[in-house]
Formats: sequence, C-alpha cells, structure tokens
Amino acid sequence: MIVVMKSEATKEQIDHVVALVREMGLNDHVIVGTDLTVVAVIGDDRKKDKGALEQVPGVDRVVPILHPYKIAAREMKKERTLVKLSDSCVFGSKHVPVIAGPCSVENEEQIMASARGVKAAGCQGLRGGAFKPRTNPYSFQGLGEEGLKLLAAARAETGLAIVTEVLTPTEVDLVSSYADCLQIGARNCQNFKLLEAVGKQPKPVLFKRGLSTTIDEYLQAAEYILAEGNPNVILCERGIRTFEDHTRNTLSLSAVPELHERTHLPIVVDPSHGTGYARLVADMSRAAVASGADGLMIEMHPDPEHAMTDGGQSITPAALKELMPSLVRVAQAIDRTMN
Amino acid sequence: MIVVMKSEATKEQIDHVVALVREMGLNDHVIVGTDLTVVAVIGDDRKKDKGALEQVPGVDRVVPILHPYKIAAREMKKERTLVKLSDSCVFGSKHVPVIAGPCSVENEEQIMASARGVKAAGCQGLRGGAFKPRTNPYSFQGLGEEGLKLLAAARAETGLAIVTEVLTPTEVDLVSSYADCLQIGARNCQNFKLLEAVGKQPKPVLFKRGLSTTIDEYLQAAEYILAEGNPNVILCERGIRTFEDHTRNTLSLSAVPELHERTHLPIVVDPSHGTGYARLVADMSRAAVASGADGLMIEMHPDPEHAMTDGGQSITPAALKELMPSLVRVAQAIDRTMN
Amino acid sequence: MIVVMKSEATKEQIDHVVALVREMGLNDHVIVGTDLTVVAVIGDDRKKDKGALEQVPGVDRVVPILHPYKIAAREMKKERTLVKLSDSCVFGSKHVPVIAGPCSVENEEQIMASARGVKAAGCQGLRGGAFKPRTNPYSFQGLGEEGLKLLAAARAETGLAIVTEVLTPTEVDLVSSYADCLQIGARNCQNFKLLEAVGKQPKPVLFKRGLSTTIDEYLQAAEYILAEGNPNVILCERGIRTFEDHTRNTLSLSAVPELHERTHLPIVVDPSHGTGYARLVADMSRAAVASGADGLMIEMHPDPEHAMTDGGQSITPAALKELMPSLVRVAQAIDRTMN
Amino acid sequence: MIVVMKSEATKEQIDHVVALVREMGLNDHVIVGTDLTVVAVIGDDRKKDKGALEQVPGVDRVVPILHPYKIAAREMKKERTLVKLSDSCVFGSKHVPVIAGPCSVENEEQIMASARGVKAAGCQGLRGGAFKPRTNPYSFQGLGEEGLKLLAAARAETGLAIVTEVLTPTEVDLVSSYADCLQIGARNCQNFKLLEAVGKQPKPVLFKRGLSTTIDEYLQAAEYILAEGNPNVILCERGIRTFEDHTRNTLSLSAVPELHERTHLPIVVDPSHGTGYARLVADMSRAAVASGADGLMIEMHPDPEHAMTDGGQSITPAALKELMPSLVRVAQAIDRTMN
Repeated sequence: MIVVMKSEATKEQIDHVVALVREMGLNDHVIVGTDLTVVAVIGDDRKKDKGALEQVPGVDRVVPILHPYKIAAREMKKERTLVKLSDSCVFGSKHVPVIAGPCSVENEEQIMASARGVKAAGCQGLRGGAFKPRTNPYSFQGLGEEGLKLLAAARAETGLAIVTEVLTPTEVDLVSSYADCLQIGARNCQNFKLLEAVGKQPKPVLFKRGLSTTIDEYLQAAEYILAEGNPNVILCERGIRTFEDHTRNTLSLSAVPELHERTHLPIVVDPSHGTGYARLVADMSRAAVASGADGLMIEMHPDPEHAMTDGGQSITPAALKELMPSLVRVAQAIDRTMN
Repeated sequence: MIVVMKSEATKEQIDHVVALVREMGLNDHVIVGTDLTVVAVIGDDRKKDKGALEQVPGVDRVVPILHPYKIAAREMKKERTLVKLSDSCVFGSKHVPVIAGPCSVENEEQIMASARGVKAAGCQGLRGGAFKPRTNPYSFQGLGEEGLKLLAAARAETGLAIVTEVLTPTEVDLVSSYADCLQIGARNCQNFKLLEAVGKQPKPVLFKRGLSTTIDEYLQAAEYILAEGNPNVILCERGIRTFEDHTRNTLSLSAVPELHERTHLPIVVDPSHGTGYARLVADMSRAAVASGADGLMIEMHPDPEHAMTDGGQSITPAALKELMPSLVRVAQAIDRTMN
Repeated sequence: MIVVMKSEATKEQIDHVVALVREMGLNDHVIVGTDLTVVAVIGDDRKKDKGALEQVPGVDRVVPILHPYKIAAREMKKERTLVKLSDSCVFGSKHVPVIAGPCSVENEEQIMASARGVKAAGCQGLRGGAFKPRTNPYSFQGLGEEGLKLLAAARAETGLAIVTEVLTPTEVDLVSSYADCLQIGARNCQNFKLLEAVGKQPKPVLFKRGLSTTIDEYLQAAEYILAEGNPNVILCERGIRTFEDHTRNTLSLSAVPELHERTHLPIVVDPSHGTGYARLVADMSRAAVASGADGLMIEMHPDPEHAMTDGGQSITPAALKELMPSLVRVAQAIDRTMN
Repeated sequence: MIVVMKSEATKEQIDHVVALVREMGLNDHVIVGTDLTVVAVIGDDRKKDKGALEQVPGVDRVVPILHPYKIAAREMKKERTLVKLSDSCVFGSKHVPVIAGPCSVENEEQIMASARGVKAAGCQGLRGGAFKPRTNPYSFQGLGEEGLKLLAAARAETGLAIVTEVLTPTEVDLVSSYADCLQIGARNCQNFKLLEAVGKQPKPVLFKRGLSTTIDEYLQAAEYILAEGNPNVILCERGIRTFEDHTRNTLSLSAVPELHERTHLPIVVDPSHGTGYARLVADMSRAAVASGADGLMIEMHPDPEHAMTDGGQSITPAALKELMPSLVRVAQAIDRTMN
C-alpha cells in the first residue's frame, strides 16, 4: 500500500507512520515529493488492516496496491479453468453453453415442459429453484426437496445438467446430492459462511455477483470458495443496482472482459435478472456472447403469464428456440461455438 | 396494482389482462384515458407476481400500489415499538441510547478497556464482534465463543447491554445465549434463512440495512423476522453504496424520517460504517440525532492504530467522551434526551 | 397520473384531491380498493406539476402514467429516423457506421494521421474536439476555431464526416459552419439552452446521454432539440455513473434495445468513454453491435502514450484496423452491415 | 501519481514508463516490492493526462496522489472564506443564514407573499427562479427579466438578499445586475463555459453540486469560477443520484464535514431538492445544521398545492416559521447562531 501524507504533515508524523509499518512486519520507503510525502509499504500487506493507518495524524489517505485475492488471480494460473457440469456442459472453453429454465420448480408438468423446451432449443443445462430466496416473506418459497427430485427426474429424461440454488449451509449436502451445480444467488454473494460450505462439497458452484459488489470484492468472495478446496467456480454477471429505472438491474457487460483479465475462472451472464424484462433478453444475450461470456443463464417458463415467480423476465420455449440460432451466429463471429 | 397498457393496445389485449386479473382472484377496473387505458387491480395482490402481467402483449408496465410489508407497517400499529436491551438501553422512546465499542473482540484487555471507555462516556450498550464477516477470506475472522465470553465478562463489570453479530443460523442459539441483542450485518440483510432464525429466538435484533437495499425491500426483510414472532427489531441505517468516493458508504439520513413515517420500529444510525472514516463520525453523529434517530451505534477502539479491524473508522475512548456532551445538547434541542 | 391515497385518508381528503384535479382541467376517476383508494387522473397531465398533489394531506404518492416526451416517442413515428452525415455515414438503417478519432484535435500532423487511420480502417466518420469541456480548469481546453479548420482539412482529404463538440450557445454557429454533425457532451445533457441552440441550426446532433440521466429524462432532453425543429438527433449511450470502480463509467447496453422500443431516433454507443480503458474497447464494441446499436463512436489516437487528453481510453490506428473485421462479422450475425 | 506495474511487467516496460515520466518533465522513483514494482512520479503532474500512462504495456493502473484543485484547497488559505450577500446574510461565519422562497417567481402576488413569509420566519435570503431549467421542454420556463424585477421589488420591501439562477453565459450580466447572488444549478455543475462567465462578474455565486459529481470533481468545477477571479463561491450539497427511491435524491450530509476539511469555501445544504418531499424537509434541515452546514436553502411557497413548479417539495410559510426555532436550538447546541 501507499500511505499519502498531508502536505502539512510533520516529520514526527511521517516517522510515526514508518514505525507502524515496521511494527506490521513490513518495509517502508519514504518518497519526498514536491508537494507532499508518501510512504510506500513493501511486502505482502493484504492481511493487514489499512484502516489502522488511515487515521494516524498527518495521513491523508491509504491506497492499496496489491489485488486482495490470490487463488482466483490470473497470475496464479495462466490457463483458463474449465468447469464441467456434464460432458456437454463445460464452461471456460471455446464452446459457450446455455443454462435455461424457470425461476422456480413449480410442479412436475411445468419442470418437464421446461426441460423439454430447453433441450429442444439446443441448450445444455436446466435451471430451476427448489429453495427460493424471496424479497417478500409472503411469496412462494419453493418446493424444497420435492423440487430437487423433480429436477433429477428432468435430468433423467433429457440429460441436461441441473443447476439449482442453495440458501443456507445446512442445506448444502442435500442440494449437492441432487444437483450438478450449486447456485449461490446475488443476495448471498457475501454470505461467507455459505461460501465456505459450498467450498467444502464437491459439485461446481455457479456464483452470482452481488447487486453492489465491486470486482475486487467479488473475487475475494470467490476466494472463500476456492480456499476451501473447491476449484470449480463459475462467475456470473447478473446486473448491478444503479439509478436506472428502465430495467430492474443494470447489466454491466464490461465485467466480462475485466474478469477475464483478472481471473482464470469462467464467466457467464444472466440477461434475465440482468435486465428484469423478457423484452430485453434476446438483445442482451447476443451482446453477452459478443462481449466474450463463457456461457449464458436464461430464465424460460412454459407459461410466463402463469409463472409463480419472475414471469416478467422469463421468455417462452418458443422464444428460446428462436433465439438460439442467432446466438450461434454471434458466437461464430468471434470464433466460438454454441451448438 | 395498476396495469398500464400501451397506447396502441387492442381491445383483445385489454380483455386478456382483465381475464388474467380475475384468474388471480382479484377484481379489475378498466379506465379508458385520453391517451391510453389502464387496468386498476382491486384486492390484496401482494402475494401475486406482478411480473406475470408485465410481458403480456399490449402491457407497457405494471405499477404496484400497496406497500409490500404488513406487520412492520405504521398502519398496523400506531404507537412506536419500544425495544429493550436493558433497563437503561431502550430504543424507541424519547431517550436516545448509544451503543459503542470495537469492530471485533480481540482479547480481554482490549474489550475491557473498550467497555470502560463506553461506560465512562455515558453510553448504554457495548458492541463487539465475535463472529466477523470479512470481505477478505485471509483477514481475522473473530474469536468465536471465546469472544462472546469476553463480552459477557464486560457486561458483568459494566452493566452495559451487549450487541454482537450472528452470521449463520446454526450459531444463533449460541450467540443468543450470551448477547442482549443480536446484530444482523448489512451483507446479510437479505439472507432470509438467517432472518427467520433470529425471528425464532427471544433476544432483540439490531438489523442493519443492506448496502443497496431500498426502504421497501428493507421493511420486507424485517418482516421475515417479525413474521416468525420476534417483535423486537431495531432498524439501522449504516450507509449505502453510491458513486461517492470520499466516504466508504453514503450515509442516507433521510431514511430516518422516512422509516418513522412508514414503520413503528425504532431506527438507529451507524455513522462509523456510514462514512468509513473516524474524522467524519462526530459531525455525522450529531446530524443523525438531529434527524430524529432513536439511537446511535459507534465504533470505538482503545487503540485504533493497532485495531485488527476497522481501525480507520474507529474513534478513541477520549473522542467518544468528548463527543457525548454535544450529542446531549443536540438531543435536547429536539426535545429528546441522551443521558 | 394516479394519485395513491393513504389507507387512512378521509373522504374530505379524497374530495380535495378530486377538486384539485378538476381545477387543473383534468378528469378524475376514483377507485375504492380493499386497502386504499386511488384517484386516476384522465387527460394530458404532462404539463402539470404532479408535485402539487404530492403533499396534499392524505396523499401517499403520485404515479405518472404518460411518458413525458412526444416528438421523440415511437408512437409519433413508426418508421426509424435516418440521420445522414454524409452519403456513406447514415445512422438508423441496416448499415452501422463507425465514427472514430482522437479526443482532441492537437495539431495538423496528429489529426491528419488520425483521419488516415480512421479511413484505412473502413470507418465513415472522424471525431475530434476543438472546444473541450475539461473537468480540470488547468487542462488543455482545445484549439478552438483552428481545430475546426484542421478537421475540415481532414475531411477534404479523406471524405470522412466530421463530428465535433459544441459547448455553449454562442459557439453553435461557428461549429455548425465547419462540422457535419455537432456533438453535445454528457455533461451538457441537461444544458437546456445549449440544446435549444443546436435545435435551431441545420446540422445533425450527436447527443450523448448524461452520466446520471434516466431514459425518460434523456428523451425529454432530446425533445428540447426536436421541438426547435431539428429532427436529426442521434442518441448515444456512453456509460453511466455507478459504484463500479473497474471502469470509469458503466456502459449500460440495455439502453440500446430500450431506446429502440421507445423512440424512432438512432442510437450509437461510445465504448471508449463507456469504459474508460482501451483494453475493454474491442469487446465492448462487439457487444454494442450485437445489442443492436446503430453506430459506434470510438476514440483512436495515433500515439496514445502522448495524447493530450484521454490517452488511457484511446486505441491505436492498428488496433482499430484489427477490430473492424470482427465487428463486420458480428453485424452480419444479426443481419446488419458494417462496410 | 503512482504507476502500478503488473506483477509480470518486464524491465523494458518499467524503463519505458520511466522514460515517459521524464519526457513529461517529471521525476521518477522506482520501488521494487515483493510482489510487483511501482513507479512513483515526483513533481506537479496535475496538468498531465494520466491516461497516457494507463495503457502502456505492463502498467496495471495509475493512482493520482495530488488533489486536482488549488485555489479551492484548504492548504491555500487557512481561514474560512466569508461570502457576503448583504449585511445580515454572510456565509462562512458562526452565523448560519437561511435562504428560502419558491422554486419559480410566478407573479407579483406570489413572490411578495413568499418574501413576507421568509422575512417573518426570520430568514435572511429570498430564492426564486426567473430563468428555469426544466427537465421537460413543455413545462413552465420562468418569467425571465420580469421575474428579476419582481425579485428586486421584493428585496426593496423586505431587505432580503436575492438569490436567483442563471442558465447561460449570455444572461449572466442581466441576472447579475438584479441579483445579490447568482445560483448555478446542479445540472450546470460541469457547464464550464457558464462557470467561467460567472467567475468574471462581481456577485457571489451559490454553486450547487451536480447529481453525480464527486467531491474532487466538484472542487475542480468551483476552481473554474475562482480561477476567473471571483473568490465568492458558496458550495451547496443538494442531493445526489443513487438507487434510492423513497426520495428524489439522496442528501449526502457527509459532504459537509468533508468539504470543510478540504476547502475554505462555505457550504450550504438544500434539503428540499436533497429529498424532493416536503415531509422530509424539517428533519433534514435540522440534520444539516447539526452536520455543520454554513447555511440552508429551503423551498417555500405560499400555496404549494398550486405551485407551478416543485410543489411537492415546497413547505408553507407557516411550516417555515414553525421550523426556525428548532433550527436555532440545534445551531446553539453546536455553538452556532441562526437569528
């Protein structure tokens, strides 16, 4: 880190900063500029609390220099991580898989119709929530284990890889026993105990970015999973919270190339939550693929007008089937494949 | 809710919306305006997914009308809820208590020095984290139960009420057995399983607003706790995430009068996390009291330069002692009391 | 608009709202729901101040229903507006033109080298600022009319259409006399006197979205130009201000399909300002085309390391030349053309 | 500035950065850390474009160190600047003046009633817009010079200092000839040509912060006025744009102590625009005074239900009169005065 002193900082104040740096077991390098002095701190200071230096008299501010994550960093692993959900559903390669399906598993008929629609469109994964995190306590909270069983049945028929959300550490083993991939939702992006729990089980994790999580915070959160020994983390940009009101979230596609620069983990995009409106999903799916995403996660429901959850952002099986060929073409335009 | 049709919507499309509304068991009222038609939906539609109507052909948008929370609403309970942590620490009355203390319990000496400083300043509660949610997995994660025991010892000596955070449902009983009040941190504001768990235990809950949670979402989340039977919820504005970079968060004090308008629950302010810098804490504490806050939560550390966590936003015991008399005067200026 | 009454509103309060609505020359429609009453206001209320009703006793809130713009609205004009800068540079058709060039015109050699690079890459327009709005008053402010002359010379040699910014009403005629298209920068998005001034001159206007402008506000601002009689407005998404810190702005590509839904005006994307970093420009250019943008505006400098302004987000002529073929392929994938 | 190199940067890349720094006429200081190398740049680099270094191969990022403003900086002038509008209306001292009045001057009766209400409440300044920047082009745009004459008449009767907005450079002389203080609105915060124009005239300037302007950008914009020779700038926090939807803007009161730390200019707060709702104005006015604001600007209208503009956030003369005594008490609590 760099400790920037105020222009009026005294020699005693600078010396005090130097003393504190050395106490931390780090080395210092004092640079006297024309307007002010900075103290460059040398050594791995990532486990130190920079706040401790921030309020020392004479200090203007403290600027971190090292990125705060390690296992997730590109520097640690040059080749891209491949995360395999099934033989046909591998994230991180030239092929760009699509996971689609309803927000919630509602009943057998609905999830089977969904799975068939997903399969018919040429997608590789089926999503569907059995445990649902709902903003409102009076809303439908999911079918629980019954939903997991229905997902397993859908996999048995279609061969699609199953992705489903887990909400709390005590349910991790149960969900892991049915799913091919555990999803961590945006609101649990910094639920560190849950991240540790999914880090300890063997299935891949589709880990959504939080609504107001910076890239640095996101990769630190991913590090919680990786540090427990699970290397199979798929990142997911799903929209951030901003002042915009024409969408429920602002889909920040620049996160895709930025994450590719900083980490070896694959990155998928969820244009459904990322916009909140079915009418925007096709264009933003194409944009996501063109931005370099390693996969897509799309909400599709056989009857959006009667969906129990997220009907407004779910496309129909027919719309998904119509969308796929144009995605294939966009992928080809950037030398990737989608079928 | 109000379903706003597009100006070019056909009669069939309007009829279809009406049919869907009736299917939901709700009543409709079609209003033909000069430019477009709206369908007013009559009845309690809070458990219905408005998304289902959003993508129906001819629909421009759907506007919710009813506030999505019930038990938390002012309409349900005219008098303010009083939440009692101890005889001298009651939130929601004319008296404005202050909870202060370090971010983390680090060791006996540190927490005892903190407790004495808090007591000497005339505050009523002691905060300190035993289980810490840390952005970085390699940072200090708290002392666990040992930290809870140290807090209990500090209470035994000083009589201060103890507020400490809980991170995951499985630890709720343990934390509840030591603490006078359980804190839910900002990053767990929509960790619904945790909210349910603290809703089922008997201690009051200090429930922090999330970094990007709207007031509506915040009260719905509080409803998760209330709906489980725990009426003792203290809300806490602790800063939101915005584009501003002179603070770590933007302290949104207008949330205080707005929440007072909408709910009967007491509202406290955390100016430490709300700004992220010790230099701003005194002014923002005074502003918080003047805005009508029912309490304050302030980070104080006996030695901020050596704090293991949050040193940059912790004030010293001396600064807290110096701050209190001016808070007392501001409170008196608005006919409230602080000592 | 819809006036939502509080659940405890009295009959007198509702009657008073009705009276105020009638006073405005509008009609009312009172709907008594199960939980509360709403007053639907019928008629064109866009010129009325809804604020006047917001603080009437018993009113909870006022919800606007009509979109606040007219000439810009899709309803007013079904076919897309074509905006022509030159024979080869027309925005709004199947063809997707690219405007590229440096942030500032610095000198003859630099702008000529830029123009040749832009031409060689197969782009249609040349950008370059002669009057520069700079955050810092001590930064380079542009060459003024000398810069305009250099742009005209570059056009004479290359045939590229010239796009350059205007900052203040008194300079509009001068800039208009040289340029093929006047640019309004993001910080002037709600500089209404400037919008009126460019609305009164004959050249097309490339009108950038403000850093924190909603789509509704943006189209209302465009309406200032249109209402003065200039129909040739090109909208431009160039990034919005959010909490994100890995980019200078957050490029909100969902604005492209949303604007296509709401207005007949063409929409271009500026991935350079939209991200702030040259390393992200290629991927976001491809994503912009895939999202349906009607054009691109890219910063390119013959020597970014020595650029006087915006060096960090400018790509080189070589990088632009390398980028174009992949853009052509992405455009073809969605049945558009780029060369 | 500090140039942070990537961990894999080569010696040639570091040497190239050093060469570019020297070319800029600055000095370098290379620090080889344990994980990476940084190049500290020594000298006044505020006029250099740091972007030029950002995309040099091997560079990870560039961190500015010097604050980008000079005349506005606290370091330049230790004592606070006093800005005098009239004998009783001076900003920057222990006394905290209040400017109140309607959004727009509508007619003689309205502005006279307003002025009398402001005077009766014990305030020192009268606000009222004659030239109005309106989001919607079809809304009331103000009375123009006729409005200025009415304001002058109100001053003649009451002795209140007059504050009114100016929108474009060509109107500066006219507005300056009538007003005691020129207001620059939030949407013109980075309208640099307008800032230069008000910097060249002799009247004080009340300069509102933009909706998405950081503190650094705000002080740089103020510097445009100061650099033209007008030292009488009053800063004004009036709410920023965030995701919050319970207010029109988020009033960021921490800007008050932060600006006091960084600049010698006085800071006032506008709780009316800062919240957008009359119901929040009283509490936020008290909070603003407690935060250390040097003045308040409050919208007041004799008949908000019939106000042509901003009726929703305007309080009545009676409400203003009721508010003032509590403000006086809050001011006294922090050793300031308000009457």
